[in-house]
Amino acid sequence: MADTPGRFAYDGLDRVLHEKARLGILTALATRPAGLLFPELASLCSLTDGNLNRHLDVLAQAGLVSVAKEGQGRASRTTVRMTPTGRQRFREYLAHLEQVLRDAAAVEAARNVGLEPT
Amino acid sequence: MADTPGRFAYDGLDRVLHEKARLGILTALATRPAGLLFPELASLCSLTDGNLNRHLDVLAQAGLVSVAKEGQGRASRTTVRMTPTGRQRFREYLAHLEQVLRDAAAVEAARNVGLEPT
Repeated sequence: MADTPGRFAYDGLDRVLHEKARLGILTALATRPAGLLFPELASLCSLTDGNLNRHLDVLAQAGLVSVAKEGQGRASRTTVRMTPTGRQRFREYLAHLEQVLRDAAAVEAARNVGLEPT
Repeated sequence: MADTPGRFAYDGLDRVLHEKARLGILTALATRPAGLLFPELASLCSLTDGNLNRHLDVLAQAGLVSVAKEGQGRASRTTVRMTPTGRQRFREYLAHLEQVLRDAAAVEAARNVGLEPT
């Protein structure tokens, strides 16, 4: 593991996607290409309506999700979907996450064969 | 992938460890059981002294790292080490991170065999 400057900066871990609640929202949406209704998404992610709205605002402003409200009043339903841009950015983010795990796994592997990293 | 409430809440992604800069700091320290000098750590993580100090305060208060200053004035050196507690908590955190990647990978696998998740 070369120790060049910035080796552990992980610039690719975009804060818009890395934040814990938003990471959950994106993973849930990734499993549902057809989208999820707002209350389903809130339940799956254990978020209050207010918190979910706040995080969806951040994700929508970044172009990662779309929020579509249909109907009016009590009959209205809000569907949240991941955009193609969101899917691409999420995939890139996951590749960076895998790098973190590889870096950490390299330490464990070295330890297991008695090669403490220096 | 059972869609039970809280399925994507990822409560195990402790914010103390999940924050991007602190994740970098912990991964760097995990590779160096003997510890890292403050300026080395700042360089590896591309952090200013001020930012590194701020994040180390959070990690030290949580008992995950120890910060030891030796010597005085210009001759002083500050060594940062991961504590045994830090090592254990970091390992647990990584297990949760792996779960996120497994969840996301399940989606990709389903797509590749033509089984769009419902």
